[in-house]
Amino acid sequence: MTTPLEIPALNQLFLEARTYGRFLDRPVPDALLRQAWDLARMGPTAANTQPARVVFVRSAEAKARLKPHLAPGNADKTMAAPATAIIAYDLDFADTLPRTFPHVDARAWYVGNDALIAETAFRNGSLQGAYLILALRAVGLDCGPMSGFDAAGVDAEFFAGSRWRANFLVNIGYGDKTALHPRNPRLGFDEACRVV
Amino acid sequence: MTTPLEIPALNQLFLEARTYGRFLDRPVPDALLRQAWDLARMGPTAANTQPARVVFVRSAEAKARLKPHLAPGNADKTMAAPATAIIAYDLDFADTLPRTFPHVDARAWYVGNDALIAETAFRNGSLQGAYLILALRAVGLDCGPMSGFDAAGVDAEFFAGSRWRANFLVNIGYGDKTALHPRNPRLGFDEACRVV
Repeated sequence: MTTPLEIPALNQLFLEARTYGRFLDRPVPDALLRQAWDLARMGPTAANTQPARVVFVRSAEAKARLKPHLAPGNADKTMAAPATAIIAYDLDFADTLPRTFPHVDARAWYVGNDALIAETAFRNGSLQGAYLILALRAVGLDCGPMSGFDAAGVDAEFFAGSRWRANFLVNIGYGDKTALHPRNPRLGFDEACRVV
Repeated sequence: MTTPLEIPALNQLFLEARTYGRFLDRPVPDALLRQAWDLARMGPTAANTQPARVVFVRSAEAKARLKPHLAPGNADKTMAAPATAIIAYDLDFADTLPRTFPHVDARAWYVGNDALIAETAFRNGSLQGAYLILALRAVGLDCGPMSGFDAAGVDAEFFAGSRWRANFLVNIGYGDKTALHPRNPRLGFDEACRVV
């Protein structure tokens, strides 16, 4: 039987994890980003569609390409972060289904149905983005997710000629706890949930 | 410094976790669902918007209300699961922002902007659904997430008169490993990710 994780793991993933705006001057090896992906990719998606795609922006040159598309309040912290993940999704995700969901012709469910493609990519690409945030925390890193950027601008700069579309951004590194503000409140079970 | 989680925790959350269609005849206490919510709710959302809402469908009567709206392939397994979560989001999520994001008037960013409301609710409600899947696994439970249902029908049956909208479903219990199929392949880092 499966048992609950121990308290330090729950703290690291959820209870004491925070959204960081500033990171320590400590290197983030590419190997750790790969390890986080190899965890996150195991999370469930509808019909194993796996629409998420990720660009890890690391070089100063690539950061400079990202900067003009950031909301002003997100620019400096993103330029300073050891890495910034563009969490995207691929509207052509169905092309891999003959390999990733081989027992039925799942590709046929999507081809020509642009509304279903867009909804499936957005929902499941977002799920995978959340799996990646928790996987990054699981390998010991900290995250600063952001929606404040011009997605069309990022698409034009990074995804021209493809059907990848930017969804949200995540700054990645080892968080600087001295720069944190007090935590904002969360909705309790009785406010956000019902049992029927 | 934060360190990586140990291998058994990574296995439980990601590497050995599976999507279950059949569950053991073992009770799932409401307290465990509450514990999972209390973990999941700590995950990050844009401007702490927290749009996700969850209905845990447990009683035979409530299951019967859900059944007509399920895709045929999802009906029997959902009726048999110890609990089924309707992962929804509230289009009125901005109403709580004066309390949950008090340092600026974030509510004003959303009021009257229906496109931004819909996109924010869908993206962040999906992130929170993923946090809940991993939180349920973290407390020792197993999940069977599903998109195969009539969302408009579920909205009419469960959310009439509110602005809650169904996003996806998750069957919950202790998974029956004897009913699993071989795992389908996932996309590797070099296929789904880039470092620039």
